[in-house]
Amino acid sequence: MKILLANPNMTEAMTERLAQVARSVAAPGTEILPLTAPRGFPYISSRAEAQIAGAIALEMIAPHAREVDAVVIAAFGDPGLDAARELFDLPVTGMAEASMLAACQLGRRFGVVTFAPWLKPWYHASVRDLGLEARFAGLRSAEDIDGPVTEVASTMRDTLLRLAERMAREDEADAVIFGGAPLAGLARDLAPDLPCVAIDPISAAVTQAEALVRLAPRGADRGAYARPPAKPSEGLDPALAAWIARAP
Amino acid sequence: MKILLANPNMTEAMTERLAQVARSVAAPGTEILPLTAPRGFPYISSRAEAQIAGAIALEMIAPHAREVDAVVIAAFGDPGLDAARELFDLPVTGMAEASMLAACQLGRRFGVVTFAPWLKPWYHASVRDLGLEARFAGLRSAEDIDGPVTEVASTMRDTLLRLAERMAREDEADAVIFGGAPLAGLARDLAPDLPCVAIDPISAAVTQAEALVRLAPRGADRGAYARPPAKPSEGLDPALAAWIARAP
Amino acid sequence: MKILLANPNMTEAMTERLAQVARSVAAPGTEILPLTAPRGFPYISSRAEAQIAGAIALEMIAPHAREVDAVVIAAFGDPGLDAARELFDLPVTGMAEASMLAACQLGRRFGVVTFAPWLKPWYHASVRDLGLEARFAGLRSAEDIDGPVTEVASTMRDTLLRLAERMAREDEADAVIFGGAPLAGLARDLAPDLPCVAIDPISAAVTQAEALVRLAPRGADRGAYARPPAKPSEGLDPALAAWIARAP
Amino acid sequence: MKILLANPNMTEAMTERLAQVARSVAAPGTEILPLTAPRGFPYISSRAEAQIAGAIALEMIAPHAREVDAVVIAAFGDPGLDAARELFDLPVTGMAEASMLAACQLGRRFGVVTFAPWLKPWYHASVRDLGLEARFAGLRSAEDIDGPVTEVASTMRDTLLRLAERMAREDEADAVIFGGAPLAGLARDLAPDLPCVAIDPISAAVTQAEALVRLAPRGADRGAYARPPAKPSEGLDPALAAWIARAP
Amino acid sequence: MKILLANPNMTEAMTERLAQVARSVAAPGTEILPLTAPRGFPYISSRAEAQIAGAIALEMIAPHAREVDAVVIAAFGDPGLDAARELFDLPVTGMAEASMLAACQLGRRFGVVTFAPWLKPWYHASVRDLGLEARFAGLRSAEDIDGPVTEVASTMRDTLLRLAERMAREDEADAVIFGGAPLAGLARDLAPDLPCVAIDPISAAVTQAEALVRLAPRGADRGAYARPPAKPSEGLDPALAAWIARAP
Amino acid sequence: MKILLANPNMTEAMTERLAQVARSVAAPGTEILPLTAPRGFPYISSRAEAQIAGAIALEMIAPHAREVDAVVIAAFGDPGLDAARELFDLPVTGMAEASMLAACQLGRRFGVVTFAPWLKPWYHASVRDLGLEARFAGLRSAEDIDGPVTEVASTMRDTLLRLAERMAREDEADAVIFGGAPLAGLARDLAPDLPCVAIDPISAAVTQAEALVRLAPRGADRGAYARPPAKPSEGLDPALAAWIARAP
Repeated sequence: MKILLANPNMTEAMTERLAQVARSVAAPGTEILPLTAPRGFPYISSRAEAQIAGAIALEMIAPHAREVDAVVIAAFGDPGLDAARELFDLPVTGMAEASMLAACQLGRRFGVVTFAPWLKPWYHASVRDLGLEARFAGLRSAEDIDGPVTEVASTMRDTLLRLAERMAREDEADAVIFGGAPLAGLARDLAPDLPCVAIDPISAAVTQAEALVRLAPRGADRGAYARPPAKPSEGLDPALAAWIARAP
Repeated sequence: MKILLANPNMTEAMTERLAQVARSVAAPGTEILPLTAPRGFPYISSRAEAQIAGAIALEMIAPHAREVDAVVIAAFGDPGLDAARELFDLPVTGMAEASMLAACQLGRRFGVVTFAPWLKPWYHASVRDLGLEARFAGLRSAEDIDGPVTEVASTMRDTLLRLAERMAREDEADAVIFGGAPLAGLARDLAPDLPCVAIDPISAAVTQAEALVRLAPRGADRGAYARPPAKPSEGLDPALAAWIARAP
Repeated sequence: MKILLANPNMTEAMTERLAQVARSVAAPGTEILPLTAPRGFPYISSRAEAQIAGAIALEMIAPHAREVDAVVIAAFGDPGLDAARELFDLPVTGMAEASMLAACQLGRRFGVVTFAPWLKPWYHASVRDLGLEARFAGLRSAEDIDGPVTEVASTMRDTLLRLAERMAREDEADAVIFGGAPLAGLARDLAPDLPCVAIDPISAAVTQAEALVRLAPRGADRGAYARPPAKPSEGLDPALAAWIARAP
Repeated sequence: MKILLANPNMTEAMTERLAQVARSVAAPGTEILPLTAPRGFPYISSRAEAQIAGAIALEMIAPHAREVDAVVIAAFGDPGLDAARELFDLPVTGMAEASMLAACQLGRRFGVVTFAPWLKPWYHASVRDLGLEARFAGLRSAEDIDGPVTEVASTMRDTLLRLAERMAREDEADAVIFGGAPLAGLARDLAPDLPCVAIDPISAAVTQAEALVRLAPRGADRGAYARPPAKPSEGLDPALAAWIARAP
Repeated sequence: MKILLANPNMTEAMTERLAQVARSVAAPGTEILPLTAPRGFPYISSRAEAQIAGAIALEMIAPHAREVDAVVIAAFGDPGLDAARELFDLPVTGMAEASMLAACQLGRRFGVVTFAPWLKPWYHASVRDLGLEARFAGLRSAEDIDGPVTEVASTMRDTLLRLAERMAREDEADAVIFGGAPLAGLARDLAPDLPCVAIDPISAAVTQAEALVRLAPRGADRGAYARPPAKPSEGLDPALAAWIARAP
Repeated sequence: MKILLANPNMTEAMTERLAQVARSVAAPGTEILPLTAPRGFPYISSRAEAQIAGAIALEMIAPHAREVDAVVIAAFGDPGLDAARELFDLPVTGMAEASMLAACQLGRRFGVVTFAPWLKPWYHASVRDLGLEARFAGLRSAEDIDGPVTEVASTMRDTLLRLAERMAREDEADAVIFGGAPLAGLARDLAPDLPCVAIDPISAAVTQAEALVRLAPRGADRGAYARPPAKPSEGLDPALAAWIARAP
């Protein structure tokens, strides 16, 4: 099975780290194809940036849509997730959604811990989209980021551990999700020190993608994720424009 | 007061019609500045197209953000609304959100009538985003579009009237919103024949923008709509990139 | 445009203050007609008092229902709002509802700050009625009122400022509404010192009333706000009784 | 135990019928004290009328508040219920609320059947107030009332039976409440012909009042139903004004 | 009226205490028939134990289903409640559900206080089942149990009082329920020292059972609590197996 | 990876069919260990039966809890799911929950189609437990079962297909789940004839179990699924009793 791991951020090192964790949890025979955003932002951290990066994610998927079995949008907050599901007839998973769905099977309430406060409104939107607010224990973040974004998993390790502990004790979270691509793999590292289940989003997104591919769903002809009718466009990325125009 | 009416669709005729209706309801002294999308789609009709057009809406607003008092995103479904509110420190309204908020003051339950079924999942997302599902009577559309999209207000007039009547009688909607930019102004035309309140989205978006400007809100320093920190980018529209980079 | 500003409290000074703020935000050509309750309470502060004052609000509106374009019920908690909308075929707005709807366009979550704890259950009911609990960050009040109710905007200024700051920082409110007629105008005064958007309820109620009048809605023939059939009564205020009886 | 049965409608015959049904279900030793509204409407059938009649209900209770163990507000829609609970330190039950709470113990989903469409928005508000929309199967009514309101239990018997059957079969209601004071006792009459549980609101209100008195709750010193501080007033019913002023 | 008080715990002393409190609140003429679990656990305190004890509760009810007018499942958390309502055609009440429904008539928000943290996830499920989360102020418990479970009402009296006070002041609970069979009767003892309404679950369950019997509901032929078709089984308690098989 | 497929029904043929479908979707290296209930019912079809069968499921899991990596409770309705998660420190999935979580990644709204009406209240409870009512399009079933329960996948094939089509067209379900163990594998067979995504519950439960095992979650020390303290018992299955007593 081939899974496209599309990182809508432009940071190569982040993509490599995400791919490495993804491969470590994937089933035998699953191939991970990592892709880094060719334009946009080094690291998305707001809904404005996600609006733009979500469109870029579609540009990244279009040229590969016929070559892979599934797509993982490798940014917490899942930019472009609904749009990609509508446009492409293969399973698409997101790090936020997948980790929340896994969390619902490992605890009653889940919370999200992240490294910077400005990520919270964006991440909160994923909970609403999913319709899982009844299972949501809240979001906790440090007051401010400490060190370069690519390093926070180490520079902020203790802070994030303490936030997760508080989430388990004060917010009654049974499972804590470590949100944000730079935290890929951190959950497994912190799990032994936590009184609750710790969830790693990229691991959840990849294993959910595998699960969906095995279900072998036929794309719908109608409804929320039916592919829209062909549409002309101007000034868009050529591959994406061709896909939207249903050009041969 | 100056209000930028940003139509994220590329169809000039649609912008003109929207501006004409907007001016007919605006208060004395309100100036409407219409703008048509320079790239993208002739008419947005899916979440995938809205993901892209929402990013284009940001490109349209950036060069004018310092010249106007408020912005109306002139497409039902409100592409880029949250992103624009986060990025720009002035009131931004959307046709879907504004018409739903007006509807809540004119009836207990509101519904949305539109001209094509593929619009429904996208429009439904606006109700969820707003958190008003408890007031929502549902969405009704024709089985298929009849005639060119720019003409549906006339070619489909009777169909839309019947759908609105059913919505009032069968779905217990007290107010019906005629969703979709091509239906601008239709509500006033159909109102006398309806047993419920009929709401025109562009009129609602403009009058809500006026109301917000008069409240003279200071932009927040923190929270969901605080402007994100400066961020570099590559391959974006220059004016938007400069705004996001907080370049002087 | 003529807007009846009906203050269901008996305190003239409060009505004057409300009218002054209302005029300061109204559009050119909007005329504010202030009215003070002829009977009832100096200041409503419980649901029991609101039950009675809501009926008095109907008595105040009835004699003017044919002379004005819209009505503002000028007490936070909106006594008689649904009843007035049902009975009279013109737009009616309330300070609580209007400020919450404005808040939803200026932030993701809104909270309400007020000056006495016994107001909280009553004000909370407005959030439920509106169906906006998903957007609600909570209510904060001082432990007790300090000074005469007509003076709290000055005597309790610092306390209210601190409560609003806590609401922004601890409850993650993006917008804070200063609830209670005696706080009219306070939001604009405190805004520069707050990290969040500050909303003034009477300003919101008046600008929403203007917005609704411009939409020129036709009253519904059926549904939640359709005018009830004529009904005889005994022992009610004559003008209201005549209106309810649909007497010529 | 003494229970005040306060009918906020002015129709004596209705009060007698309500009292008769109430006595038929009350426990040994329970005394029912029926009271008919001295002013207001022959029969309340809208929220505007309920706003006024709710205030009249408070006037009816005030002179008896020290003589009885509990109060039943004997109109479906429960006019003045929250206000009465706040003002008087004894258990107060309502026909709508009590029947819905009983229904939740006899079925998963309950619906309400009534005789006229204009009652529906008012009755629906009781479901929202209670917060039980998750258990609510909907409201069904005849297209129009048939015969005098005091006679509908007989003139509309078959229509109401058919509506209840449809509610059980089409809306999946496990329990059907026959809403509206004129339908007192009808549920027991129709039960044998229905595939679902049939609930009589006045019976539910009286048995709930008995249940609450046996719990012997102490009134709260604070919170949603704490008695408000003493308050002066003008132009109100003397007994009610004295109670609100906490006059000796 | 005969009410079976089925304690799914194996502790006789607990049953006696529950029966004593039940008799103290029951109406004249109500007979309480106490029954202690013949197998299972001395005291249920988790959902796993409740899964098993709920099945045992059905075994306890089956032999008596034709002799009594109603059943009270005498364990907070209501093990087997839905199953019993489905299987037996008489009113069945639970201590958690009944106390929450009573609380809704005595305050706007209710909370639950109990003696051990591991009870919280189980008790929380009762709030969700009922669909009353909108009225729920939360659960508070001591950090750990102090003394034998049968003694906690005395050994932990002060701790529980303080928890209830905090619930009233910090969580804005208007009514506090003392959850857990060992706390039977404690509410009446603590009420005078609390600023909120205190509710005793066994008293609520018995008075609700009386209220339902007086409503004389006919069992439903269809829907959520219709008795399932006859079913063979192996290895179950003979009386229960016979009932499920609808053996004569 | 070893997955215990515990069928709480007593029908061997059903277990074989479930195991066959499970193996057809499992990843390379996944071993399916099927187990049939040693006591209870040939086929569970009510909440009363599920209450009992859920306890039996715990008896089935206990002797194998140390030998396997995950457990699938192989009955739609997920009897004993929460209890098993609390009691055993390994991932446990259920057919209803897993198929709903998969559906949320393949469509906006999901519905459930099954073969008999009495299954609906039980299956509906799974949607509520999960907290996904916002994504739920409803339940549809035939009026009555046609043929032996083990044969319904073939005897009722066309009926079930038509129900799924109606669910897609009338209820706007994007994904339809074929609920009930006897329908194992049917989704793949009907998918080509449906306008929506078709989901097979046992396939979803197995692939979700695999996904969770790959996440390698540590069991929580506290919270909703923490293992309860050791507890003595009488009259329970010895292996289960030993596990609950934490006997060595």
